[in-house]
Amino acid sequence: MNSVTLRFQPTLACAWRVKTTSSSRRIPALQLLCYGVSSTDLQSPVKTNIRYYCSRMNQGQGLLFRQLFESVSSTYTYLLADTETKEAVLIDPVLETVDRDLKLIDELGLSLKIAVNTHCHADHITGTGLLKRKLFGVKSAISKHSGATADILLSEGDSINFGKHCLNVRETPGHTDGCMTLVTGDQTMAFTGDTLLIRGCGRTDFQQGCSKRLYKSVHEKIFTLPAHCLIYPAHDYKGQTVSTVDEEKKFNPRLTKTLEEFVVIMKNLNLSRPNKIDIAVPANLVCGLHDV
Amino acid sequence: MNSVTLRFQPTLACAWRVKTTSSSRRIPALQLLCYGVSSTDLQSPVKTNIRYYCSRMNQGQGLLFRQLFESVSSTYTYLLADTETKEAVLIDPVLETVDRDLKLIDELGLSLKIAVNTHCHADHITGTGLLKRKLFGVKSAISKHSGATADILLSEGDSINFGKHCLNVRETPGHTDGCMTLVTGDQTMAFTGDTLLIRGCGRTDFQQGCSKRLYKSVHEKIFTLPAHCLIYPAHDYKGQTVSTVDEEKKFNPRLTKTLEEFVVIMKNLNLSRPNKIDIAVPANLVCGLHDV
Repeated sequence: MNSVTLRFQPTLACAWRVKTTSSSRRIPALQLLCYGVSSTDLQSPVKTNIRYYCSRMNQGQGLLFRQLFESVSSTYTYLLADTETKEAVLIDPVLETVDRDLKLIDELGLSLKIAVNTHCHADHITGTGLLKRKLFGVKSAISKHSGATADILLSEGDSINFGKHCLNVRETPGHTDGCMTLVTGDQTMAFTGDTLLIRGCGRTDFQQGCSKRLYKSVHEKIFTLPAHCLIYPAHDYKGQTVSTVDEEKKFNPRLTKTLEEFVVIMKNLNLSRPNKIDIAVPANLVCGLHDV
Repeated sequence: MNSVTLRFQPTLACAWRVKTTSSSRRIPALQLLCYGVSSTDLQSPVKTNIRYYCSRMNQGQGLLFRQLFESVSSTYTYLLADTETKEAVLIDPVLETVDRDLKLIDELGLSLKIAVNTHCHADHITGTGLLKRKLFGVKSAISKHSGATADILLSEGDSINFGKHCLNVRETPGHTDGCMTLVTGDQTMAFTGDTLLIRGCGRTDFQQGCSKRLYKSVHEKIFTLPAHCLIYPAHDYKGQTVSTVDEEKKFNPRLTKTLEEFVVIMKNLNLSRPNKIDIAVPANLVCGLHDV
């Protein structure tokens, strides 16, 4: 089965999504459907560029989008929701700003389904655990390669569905083993975590970091997206909020270099150890709260 | 002449715009046309809700938009440009982030025409003067009621045109005498300066501040915009990036109150004096640099 088949057989695609998802999760397939998670594991990474069934549905618009910032760790949290069904997804929530995010979700009348981390962060504690505690029914999600526990363990080709919209998972390791880039079904927005930052990228000197893998991830999984696809990173330290694939391909001072040059650049960054790494990583391996 | 006439007579409207602009500016009408500034002074504030000639042109899309943040003063700078003509406008640039903004403008291949301040800021020094010095041809703009000097002094109903897009001036005094809200021609975005913040508003206890005027400005000039019009303020201190007219009408903790309650709230804020006020205000009266 491939994406073309899915394009013309949405019912079949739906059934298949539930079936293939069930094998690698901690939760039953039927529940996954409720969470809005599906799998397209059978597609190769290259073929994930086009996901017709999501893309077609996304054309109906109705996507609510909010970018939120946590200033201590300079982290961006993203809220996405279907304006009709009110189903919502939160990307990279931060522990300290959970109440702000919950207030907004409440005011907008949204129903938060999934709180997903693009990876196991080292610079802040995720808000997913606290969100689960404060809001009944929220499921946490993270890459199965992260080593972290969560309600939903995602892998290449999986989709997070909310209403008629979806986020497709592209595995983009390099900053950590479990880094993902989440791409909207219509490929107009990519949430790149720490893999690709605006005119920068995540460091590769700890937590399974590997500059060669990061370079490959960016070039094969992000730079292959449409030129005008918006890049929304997990962090920015200069007050920038968004970029595009086209811009980063032209102006990213690191990723425009050759692989060999990139490896040298990353090797010589000499960055200091993140302040919170010894607290954040163990906490983030269990949704940010040891007792959740 | 009214907005309905303008709707069907774009050529006439254009001529009229140049003509009426010439009477109250320091620069000739012909130059104003080059800057992309026009005036609709003859329209009453109430009638400025609809500007058909701009609205119609805006439907062609092609608006580049970037929100930028300066973290010390928590100021948002906004870059807007026509993707075809590359003409750009910068709203509320900050002195310390001028180089960042210029680099982005250069990378995107834009031609910055106007750097406009929503008001004479007290918490940071504007970047307009430095921008003028570094980039030939840029014109500074501010409200004629601000008391500040600038190349272009704006008032109610004026428009800043860039390519097929425009920003319409709504005078919204209250935080200062010279506060403006800039509204895109299609009324999908409003840059409210310090008049309306996300779930808040600018203080009214110095610089000609008047809580009654601010309340009136918000209710008559901003809350009368379409419900889904996006609100982009000059500041946010909680990591919020955008709101809507509908949200602020429902959830703004101050502006949802009665005028009498609002006045009491604003009177009792007991805020400390801004750190930079003694430096920023005199500098901002002359585009941020005393010698420009």
